Amino acid sequence: MPSTVSANPLHLVAVTGGTHGNEMSGVCLVKHWLRDSSELVRDTFTAVPLLANPKATENCVRYYERDLNRCFTMDILSSPELQDEPYEVKRAREINRLFGLRGSTNAFDMILDLHNTTSNMGVCLIISEAQRHLEMHVCHHIQKHLPNYNPRIYLYAEPGVELYDLCSVSKYGIGFELGPQPQGVVRADTLQTMRTLVQVTLDFINQLNQGKEFPAFEADVYQRVGHVDFPRAPDGEISAVVHPSLQDRDFSPLHPGEPAFLSLDGKMIPYNGDQQIYPVFINEAAYYEKKIAFIVAEKIRLSIPALCTTGGQGSP
Amino acid sequence: MPSTVSANPLHLVAVTGGTHGNEMSGVCLVKHWLRDSSELVRDTFTAVPLLANPKATENCVRYYERDLNRCFTMDILSSPELQDEPYEVKRAREINRLFGLRGSTNAFDMILDLHNTTSNMGVCLIISEAQRHLEMHVCHHIQKHLPNYNPRIYLYAEPGVELYDLCSVSKYGIGFELGPQPQGVVRADTLQTMRTLVQVTLDFINQLNQGKEFPAFEADVYQRVGHVDFPRAPDGEISAVVHPSLQDRDFSPLHPGEPAFLSLDGKMIPYNGDQQIYPVFINEAAYYEKKIAFIVAEKIRLSIPALCTTGGQGSP
Repeated sequence: MPSTVSANPLHLVAVTGGTHGNEMSGVCLVKHWLRDSSELVRDTFTAVPLLANPKATENCVRYYERDLNRCFTMDILSSPELQDEPYEVKRAREINRLFGLRGSTNAFDMILDLHNTTSNMGVCLIISEAQRHLEMHVCHHIQKHLPNYNPRIYLYAEPGVELYDLCSVSKYGIGFELGPQPQGVVRADTLQTMRTLVQVTLDFINQLNQGKEFPAFEADVYQRVGHVDFPRAPDGEISAVVHPSLQDRDFSPLHPGEPAFLSLDGKMIPYNGDQQIYPVFINEAAYYEKKIAFIVAEKIRLSIPALCTTGGQGSP
Repeated sequence: MPSTVSANPLHLVAVTGGTHGNEMSGVCLVKHWLRDSSELVRDTFTAVPLLANPKATENCVRYYERDLNRCFTMDILSSPELQDEPYEVKRAREINRLFGLRGSTNAFDMILDLHNTTSNMGVCLIISEAQRHLEMHVCHHIQKHLPNYNPRIYLYAEPGVELYDLCSVSKYGIGFELGPQPQGVVRADTLQTMRTLVQVTLDFINQLNQGKEFPAFEADVYQRVGHVDFPRAPDGEISAVVHPSLQDRDFSPLHPGEPAFLSLDGKMIPYNGDQQIYPVFINEAAYYEKKIAFIVAEKIRLSIPALCTTGGQGSP
């Protein structure tokens, strides 16, 4: 690995909310910035707000016909438009055109996509994979500047699976996932935290564009490796709920044999994996229909090279 | 007021969940009891579980076409069925027939209706009005037996407005409103609390039926007197969120001039009433569309006469 990687200056940044229409921090902030975008202004680049899924936002639901944040595959983006396609499939293509076409040199430089979760995830910074050095620097910058939030870095890409989320349209992308916040509710504290994350990120980009170098560092990340469904009755209904001793303990280690679920007739059901894991997105409302009670992650220590704007060695 | 009121023994009790289909404690418990109702069995009466709004539950939404818990007016219940009526209007009539017709001698004796809220309401016991002496005794019994839950009593009936909720179908009715819990999420702790409330209530009914007398008492109740909407921009969009110092402080006094909202451009907006109130249902997800940021309640001290089964004086 090179000791320093370099990036071209970032010119176009999008800040997107309402990708899921009932995740209200981003919905409220983006609606505010669409009226007054002054706090997104920086010297060296343009940042634009976008309400990603207006129809879901209007109805205060995660999605109208299909989860928008699973629609940005090259297959969908490159297909001709059909009349009776789901709203979100059409909207994904529209956003792809707005943001300069995924994978092209015209693509936006960065998307900051604003999300909430009902899980006790605190401040979670989501990027696709460890090789995303520029995004890793953004996350590290946030961790250094906002230590009281205890921001965690979560890597979601699955080996061999094409990226399908909104952030994959731009050259770089980060999701801010804040919780716990119920769907359809905006909490002032969560809103303010989200706003601060965006400010600190825009400041980082500005400093990078101005030629500042960011030194190498080591960081812990949580790498998605799988998920666990709820125990279910033969008819498919949930037969157990997340155990009280696991609820709200996102990012804490869970060992084989420790309580994972509590059945409706009162029995403790242990985690039956074969090694220690770090559960995340524990009891997220939107994942019931996806048959996910929690995501299984591993904690990994990464070494990230220094970062500068073009002129250094390598590329991020 | 008589020193003792008497009630006929209660023979038929319904325990209803999923009146709002995304309030998951009641949904999960009722689905469990529909498979195994043994914990609802008592010597002196029959208790039946009912999933009140199956279509909303299936879709994990509050309601499918109309809020079911606003559909139990005599006007709706007595109207002939029309083909293209909302699902919940038809379902309200169906439930009314199941439970013996509102206002008739055949009506069920009691409905326990299980709800959740995203607000920090803790354990809230909901009855229509202070004259509901039997229900007040149930609430007092719960308060005495489960002091650690700090159960509060909330009276929702508005003067001159006909009752419209599911509980109004039976002779007596209580809503259990537990929060905070996000819509679409079942938390083990909230589920267990709900279950305990039902147990203690069924035990109370059993004791009452067996001839036990319950002495007079005094209790604080929170009487609904109005509500406050979010501040809004000219286009109708919310322009301020619940202030951090008000969020989660349901049942705590709020004085004129104290912070109520925080605008998206950072200004504190005070409560502008003319006397101290007790806000409840602060920042409830389902009330955004009803244009309610919080309900305004007054705290009142009530004296409730003793209660016995038939043979005492007066009627509850």
